Amino acid sequence: MKVGIIGMGLIGGSMAIDLKKRNFATQIVGYDNSELHAKTALNLGIADELGSLEDIVDSTDLIILAIPADATLAVLPKVMDLIDNQIVTDVCSIKGNLAEQVKYHQKRANYVAAHPMAGTEHTGPWAARSDLFDGKAVILCDAENSSEDALHTVRTMYDHLHMRPVYMNSFNHDAHAAYISHISHISSFALALTVLDKERNEKNIFDLASGGFDSTVRLAKSSADMWTPIFAQNADNVVTVLDTYIDKLQQFRKAIEKNDKSTISHLITESNKIKKVLS
Amino acid sequence: MKVGIIGMGLIGGSMAIDLKKRNFATQIVGYDNSELHAKTALNLGIADELGSLEDIVDSTDLIILAIPADATLAVLPKVMDLIDNQIVTDVCSIKGNLAEQVKYHQKRANYVAAHPMAGTEHTGPWAARSDLFDGKAVILCDAENSSEDALHTVRTMYDHLHMRPVYMNSFNHDAHAAYISHISHISSFALALTVLDKERNEKNIFDLASGGFDSTVRLAKSSADMWTPIFAQNADNVVTVLDTYIDKLQQFRKAIEKNDKSTISHLITESNKIKKVLS
Repeated sequence: MKVGIIGMGLIGGSMAIDLKKRNFATQIVGYDNSELHAKTALNLGIADELGSLEDIVDSTDLIILAIPADATLAVLPKVMDLIDNQIVTDVCSIKGNLAEQVKYHQKRANYVAAHPMAGTEHTGPWAARSDLFDGKAVILCDAENSSEDALHTVRTMYDHLHMRPVYMNSFNHDAHAAYISHISHISSFALALTVLDKERNEKNIFDLASGGFDSTVRLAKSSADMWTPIFAQNADNVVTVLDTYIDKLQQFRKAIEKNDKSTISHLITESNKIKKVLS
Repeated sequence: MKVGIIGMGLIGGSMAIDLKKRNFATQIVGYDNSELHAKTALNLGIADELGSLEDIVDSTDLIILAIPADATLAVLPKVMDLIDNQIVTDVCSIKGNLAEQVKYHQKRANYVAAHPMAGTEHTGPWAARSDLFDGKAVILCDAENSSEDALHTVRTMYDHLHMRPVYMNSFNHDAHAAYISHISHISSFALALTVLDKERNEKNIFDLASGGFDSTVRLAKSSADMWTPIFAQNADNVVTVLDTYIDKLQQFRKAIEKNDKSTISHLITESNKIKKVLS
């Protein structure tokens, strides 16, 4: 099958590598609005050839949109206007707005909304790598709105990426993503801002940051281009979970200020229950 | 040199392993107030023999206290009352109270206040391992109050653990530790509480938690026994940095609620500056 990938970054590039290597894709045609990214993908052998949006629609059977959430909102309907029998899918971390956007499109059945739950804090085709998706979950949203053929094709593609499909509707997806993934990122961004604010001496950060700090703040390397539209599009859910988070921090603050060791200890012990749901 | 270790957990046990392996210690005499931990350390070969506090003081040249912050406050003066020419050191993450506690002790010069910046979220002698400290920093506090001999011995010990010494006074140590290490832990504990609170369906956590969530919440596995006394003893600094952290989160909340993409993007871009001080 010929696969077109719009967006040759970490996600698009990593999909290209394994779909080719594992014989799902016979050829990868890539597009990126950054000429540097596009050429790099070609030079690294991630894309077999480059083409315009129109070229990709004309010459491939499956088109994957692997671009930020705001760009997906604009490009998805455009691609769906151009297709005939081709199948289209996306990899956005945020699904509700997108679902609304194409709900009544005459090619809705050709589209499969997906969110592969994998990534790193790095970006660009340089960060693309094999095995990125292995063993992770892919959330397939509103699957009942896709044709059997489209759904089958996209599921088979994710089988080749060794991903476990989970079905959910778009609006539930966005709430759960806020509760779990989006809040982790804000927590990390705010932590980085706090440390940079309080600790003007970078040598101290380097000396006092043990492994724990590194892992907690790792997500703060994530890009504004990717995360700004996610937070903006998922504002209601994100604000709700932020309120809960700030409330938990206030509980810690109050207990620490009052030197109430039993409450501090209770809060920590309760938080330890996360162990059982982590790997 | 015969080394006595009070507390055969992750830190004490890991020190024992490398000090013996790297020929700094000829023999390790261990003590732990948990009989299970003590016997496990002996059975795993981490300690060569077990003894009481008094046995350890009588039979070793260097005594390491590797127990929680509240226990160290109680045990350190007791050990210092018993010693003659022996050297004593501790590994507490919090130094100000301890410094005050022994400031006028007649054996103050025999004591070296140290904080090796290493650890994992696991506890007990089972978690002890070689190479835990390699390449990390050890903060040596108020070094001017230790004798040359004591300081030299403890520095040589940390050389054998492949740690880089950093000098700081106790009160500065506690402020910087709050700004960098303690806030990371609270951020992670509160994140775990938030997710457990909002997300009642554990299967969703499992499906939607990608690598980013795991790393951010990893510290929430840390034990209440260790962290309650740290937060309690470092209350003023921790409350100060928590206020800054909550303020940063409120800035995110406000920008997201108002759909102010330029502020969201600016906050993320500013937080990205943490990259340059991270490994």
